[in-house]
Amino acid sequence: MNKHGGYYGNKKNILDFSVNINPLKTPEKTIENIKKYATKLHKYPEIEGKTGKKIIANNLGIDTKKVILGNGAIELIYLFARAFKPKKVLIIQPTFNEYERAFKLVNSEIFHFQRDEKSGFNIDVEKLSNYIDKVKPDTVILCNPNNPTATYTEKEKFKRVLEKIKNNNSYLFLDESFIDFSNKESFIELTQKYPIFIIRSMTKYFAVPGIRLGFGIGNKKIINSLNKYKEPWTINTIALNTISELLNDDSYIKKTKEWYLKEKEYMNEKLKEIKNINYYKSNTNFYLCKTDITSKKLKDKLINKNINIRTCEDFYGLENNHFRICIKNRLENEYLINQLNLILN
Amino acid sequence: MNKHGGYYGNKKNILDFSVNINPLKTPEKTIENIKKYATKLHKYPEIEGKTGKKIIANNLGIDTKKVILGNGAIELIYLFARAFKPKKVLIIQPTFNEYERAFKLVNSEIFHFQRDEKSGFNIDVEKLSNYIDKVKPDTVILCNPNNPTATYTEKEKFKRVLEKIKNNNSYLFLDESFIDFSNKESFIELTQKYPIFIIRSMTKYFAVPGIRLGFGIGNKKIINSLNKYKEPWTINTIALNTISELLNDDSYIKKTKEWYLKEKEYMNEKLKEIKNINYYKSNTNFYLCKTDITSKKLKDKLINKNINIRTCEDFYGLENNHFRICIKNRLENEYLINQLNLILN
Repeated sequence: MNKHGGYYGNKKNILDFSVNINPLKTPEKTIENIKKYATKLHKYPEIEGKTGKKIIANNLGIDTKKVILGNGAIELIYLFARAFKPKKVLIIQPTFNEYERAFKLVNSEIFHFQRDEKSGFNIDVEKLSNYIDKVKPDTVILCNPNNPTATYTEKEKFKRVLEKIKNNNSYLFLDESFIDFSNKESFIELTQKYPIFIIRSMTKYFAVPGIRLGFGIGNKKIINSLNKYKEPWTINTIALNTISELLNDDSYIKKTKEWYLKEKEYMNEKLKEIKNINYYKSNTNFYLCKTDITSKKLKDKLINKNINIRTCEDFYGLENNHFRICIKNRLENEYLINQLNLILN
Repeated sequence: MNKHGGYYGNKKNILDFSVNINPLKTPEKTIENIKKYATKLHKYPEIEGKTGKKIIANNLGIDTKKVILGNGAIELIYLFARAFKPKKVLIIQPTFNEYERAFKLVNSEIFHFQRDEKSGFNIDVEKLSNYIDKVKPDTVILCNPNNPTATYTEKEKFKRVLEKIKNNNSYLFLDESFIDFSNKESFIELTQKYPIFIIRSMTKYFAVPGIRLGFGIGNKKIINSLNKYKEPWTINTIALNTISELLNDDSYIKKTKEWYLKEKEYMNEKLKEIKNINYYKSNTNFYLCKTDITSKKLKDKLINKNINIRTCEDFYGLENNHFRICIKNRLENEYLINQLNLILN
């Protein structure tokens, strides 16, 4: 198994900044809905989640046939790998390390294209285009906003790469799991014109990762290819019956937006003030940072203060002094900032 | 997608005899437990379900390293296929049709060995042994008790086949999803000596198919091979936290045993009395039956009476007059028997 965020030690009441989940916790309405469904579990879930797909499609204003559900977005990474078995995969790095594992399991040859740290981990599109010409990958993988760098790549900027992908009859595998936390635009409308498969998570924004729920969007040809490999009943009844509740919870969505704006501003300001820390501009609900001491050492010191962070030495191209922190609630963020100041100043 | 049991029409209050679930419905304690966990879904599930595996291992009296969890037993069929990619698979038929799909997706060549209908769908072990000699399969698939024939094959009888499988360095993939409903013995102890991977369902017996929960048992070499291909977080928090509740619900288990004994006796007696119906001896919670009219016609007539049955024409080697019914509660069983009598006599 790859390394992931999360705290698995023995301490109680750890403030976990290593997992990028909405700190407002599961919406009350959803909790009530789940309790209601606890008495309806003696039936199998809808085998392909037809009803849920329809709700998502309506919400996005697209055709239901362009939607596929996942037992978390992660199922769809592995499903895409199995269904398309690309010979060559180009991963834009550093990024979520399950892509590499998923495609290695189907024997894809993996190529890495490195984002430029000096430019704040932006993608040098010309360099990438040239690399695509050289490698001729069957699938290019972009996470946008990117985990763990929090970088967002604009549609217009990336179109040049998309043209190339289209001309090569290859695919863009696009992970938009963190797009809901940003005020940036999804690439969904581009799925009409370009061979893009987008995956989205529903459980980070709505703070229900425990139920496992994600979805994918692509043209009908892509979705049909995936369905040939899709396993039955992967999404449980509770997840399926939560979709409508989540997408229609306007008050939670509003509260999240307000939280995000306020805390983002606060964190931008406070991180700037800490000496001996570099942080990269964030387009989502977490920050990639860098310090003078190793992130392992920093993590140990913070654990003593009941704080957990994600060290990043296992991400391709990152070093042993990179770490990732998510944005939580004000009191929690304040406490983190204070502790970072005490340790690093 | 393959065809499966379940009712997807527009009628309300259908008595669904096509799905083999315990009619006592989800245990009350489990429902209460699930309600409690509704407020704990803002955290990711344990990535590999360590705690759950330990509980199952303790319950079975085996080493935790011999256990793997599944998002339903079905995940483990597809996972085994991916991890072992057998060149040749021999399926003992007629049986659950997801095996064939799972192994076809990894390009296994499929061979079918037919149970003998005249002997009540028992396995002719000598014939099977000879067929194994001829085909030399990498994996043999047995469902025991078998879906949809309800036949159980004794350990002692099957040992000859197991010796052959062992000598050929191949595997037995053994689906024991319905063993809990029978009073028959599991093959678990044989996993010490023979290369057997067993899958078990937890959600049929405890009537929680909506949460998706199954597990597998094999020697450490088999489990390690599967873990190399296992995807992260496939089992949701609710399923994981239900394991202990289910396995320790002695009063539900006792109630189920009592229900089963009484209703089995009742059904055996009543099915015998219906003219124009053959049923095969059942070693689990359902019956395979055969009539003079097509099962499609019978199903249509029964749907008019708010009863659903599983027609079986899609099972390898079964015909358009085979159908499967599960055992439900007395009132429901009585109603089914009455309607079958009215239609078939």
